[in-house]
Amino acid sequence: MQSDYLNALLKKPVSRTPIWVMRQAGRYLPEYRAVRKRAGDFMSLCKNPELACEVTMQPLERFDLDAAILFSDILTIPDAMGLGLYFSEGEGPKFTNPLRSAADIEKLPTDVNNDLSYVFDAVGAIKTALDKRLPLIGFSGSPWTLATYMLEGGSSKTFSNTKKMLLNEPQTLHLLLDKLALSVAAYLRQQVLSGADSLMIFDTWGGVLSKQNYLDFSLNYMAKIVKILKAEQAQIPITLFSKNGGKHLPQIADTLCDGVGIDWTIELSEAQAQIGDRLAIQGNLDPAVMYAKPPIIEAEVKKILSQFTGKTGHIFNLGHGINPDVPPENMQVLVEAVHKFSLK
Amino acid sequence: MQSDYLNALLKKPVSRTPIWVMRQAGRYLPEYRAVRKRAGDFMSLCKNPELACEVTMQPLERFDLDAAILFSDILTIPDAMGLGLYFSEGEGPKFTNPLRSAADIEKLPTDVNNDLSYVFDAVGAIKTALDKRLPLIGFSGSPWTLATYMLEGGSSKTFSNTKKMLLNEPQTLHLLLDKLALSVAAYLRQQVLSGADSLMIFDTWGGVLSKQNYLDFSLNYMAKIVKILKAEQAQIPITLFSKNGGKHLPQIADTLCDGVGIDWTIELSEAQAQIGDRLAIQGNLDPAVMYAKPPIIEAEVKKILSQFTGKTGHIFNLGHGINPDVPPENMQVLVEAVHKFSLK
Repeated sequence: MQSDYLNALLKKPVSRTPIWVMRQAGRYLPEYRAVRKRAGDFMSLCKNPELACEVTMQPLERFDLDAAILFSDILTIPDAMGLGLYFSEGEGPKFTNPLRSAADIEKLPTDVNNDLSYVFDAVGAIKTALDKRLPLIGFSGSPWTLATYMLEGGSSKTFSNTKKMLLNEPQTLHLLLDKLALSVAAYLRQQVLSGADSLMIFDTWGGVLSKQNYLDFSLNYMAKIVKILKAEQAQIPITLFSKNGGKHLPQIADTLCDGVGIDWTIELSEAQAQIGDRLAIQGNLDPAVMYAKPPIIEAEVKKILSQFTGKTGHIFNLGHGINPDVPPENMQVLVEAVHKFSLK
Repeated sequence: MQSDYLNALLKKPVSRTPIWVMRQAGRYLPEYRAVRKRAGDFMSLCKNPELACEVTMQPLERFDLDAAILFSDILTIPDAMGLGLYFSEGEGPKFTNPLRSAADIEKLPTDVNNDLSYVFDAVGAIKTALDKRLPLIGFSGSPWTLATYMLEGGSSKTFSNTKKMLLNEPQTLHLLLDKLALSVAAYLRQQVLSGADSLMIFDTWGGVLSKQNYLDFSLNYMAKIVKILKAEQAQIPITLFSKNGGKHLPQIADTLCDGVGIDWTIELSEAQAQIGDRLAIQGNLDPAVMYAKPPIIEAEVKKILSQFTGKTGHIFNLGHGINPDVPPENMQVLVEAVHKFSLK
């Protein structure tokens, strides 16, 4: 498969800057909302490989995107571990059985792939549907991010439980993170065996930590996963994305990963100055720009493209998932602008 | 008044590192919760100068803090402008009449001090109660932060309305920010005339902007306020605090402010490396450390104190307000540790 996305990630020549968009299969698309309604709730959609495949393909039919990304959730692993993931309207993810003690953590299994076959089936179905036209990105949440949800029981502003454990019982938290790292590695390995061409680890909450804590409790475990996977399948490209992690790029680049995601709070030029040509950079349009009028979207795209020096190694994306109230027409404007203004 | 807090802010010699804590008068104190209950709702408490004075004084009776801070809210100005501020339990601040159009913005007044006399009365009452024992910090929200609440109608994750205006109608947003800068300057001036010894501008949401947007839409207007105030009262010390603004410190230092607040996502040593001795630094313990056991709180305090080189210019604080579920005993541990380990 000739792919600008994979080539950019591996720093090989590209015909133009590739683009995919976080949550490109999502609520901003009316056809997604229709399938979501049919499925019932969000997790029923994730757990139905046929429907997960259908929504994965939807944005590719509308827009000239350079990669597909598996439709799933970052919290499938804790769900498979028995925590009972559910989504209550407007409140984000919740667990019916959050972790309450060190004993809960000791009991957790480290490989839950048996209960995640719906994900691997979805990967297989998408792979068939793609018919080698585009590469498929598999993904997981990072151990730190999974741990916060598992300990808080859902989203949090203060991460009290997790940080309390980090401070008062760091060894217990390390045990949890280590188990999660092994689970994530097994999960991503099976996604690759099922057909994923590239992998991403989303570290949504790494940015709430101080530098040292980020290195010890978040990056450390992502690095471990990358190391495990690269030892087995050296060629699989892996991208790490810590939201609000712009200050940690040199350390992220020291892992064996191939690409790093950045959000809009760091300039692309500064990111490149920090890590040079060592790995690919994915990002970094402010998702809010997608609310702007087309000429403004185009101007912002040009601004970002012009910041990147070098012939390859940039994968265009938003700095966070596309918002549900963005007009789909603006996605068209975005994708076309990236391609048009970056033709080599 | 001999004050380590004011001296540190002005880079004069101190006997030990001063400390105050954001939201030091707040829900973690049972005596605060009692007064809050008596007052009815949160805004009734803010609008009652006698009770606002009472809760301002509460933490000073328990702990050896180095400054008092006016008990109030960052959103008093939009409330006085007629937007109708209220707090719904667990949801944060809301406005009954958020700004909906450019016409709404054009109609806004620029000096609403007449409707803020309850704040100035509270400042006067606290000043009397303090009896020159400790300095009093007055404050306001930053224009950018106020604008986000006024345009979104409350808290936001995506700041869609505000960013939409930033992109599609930047001049309308600049008009709003300019009006707010004038209002904030008038408001802070009157706080000083009523007795405030120092001022803080809280820029809670500056960190959600890209670098250039931060400079143009947030820092620019804080700088304007500082300039207005310094032209009139050169000696009043002013501290700017942009949450998640660690990457903008050199630009913040280029304003005429005296101190900069930092959160825990930047190391104090790095902040100092960036701005040198040019101004005082306030921060930066992760509020989550307040959940830890006393020896861990002490160790974290030592870590921060040891990062600061130089004999003065550091004001200890958390990197964000103290959380409501922190045991008050831990505040005692914190304050004592800062003083004990920093004795000159």
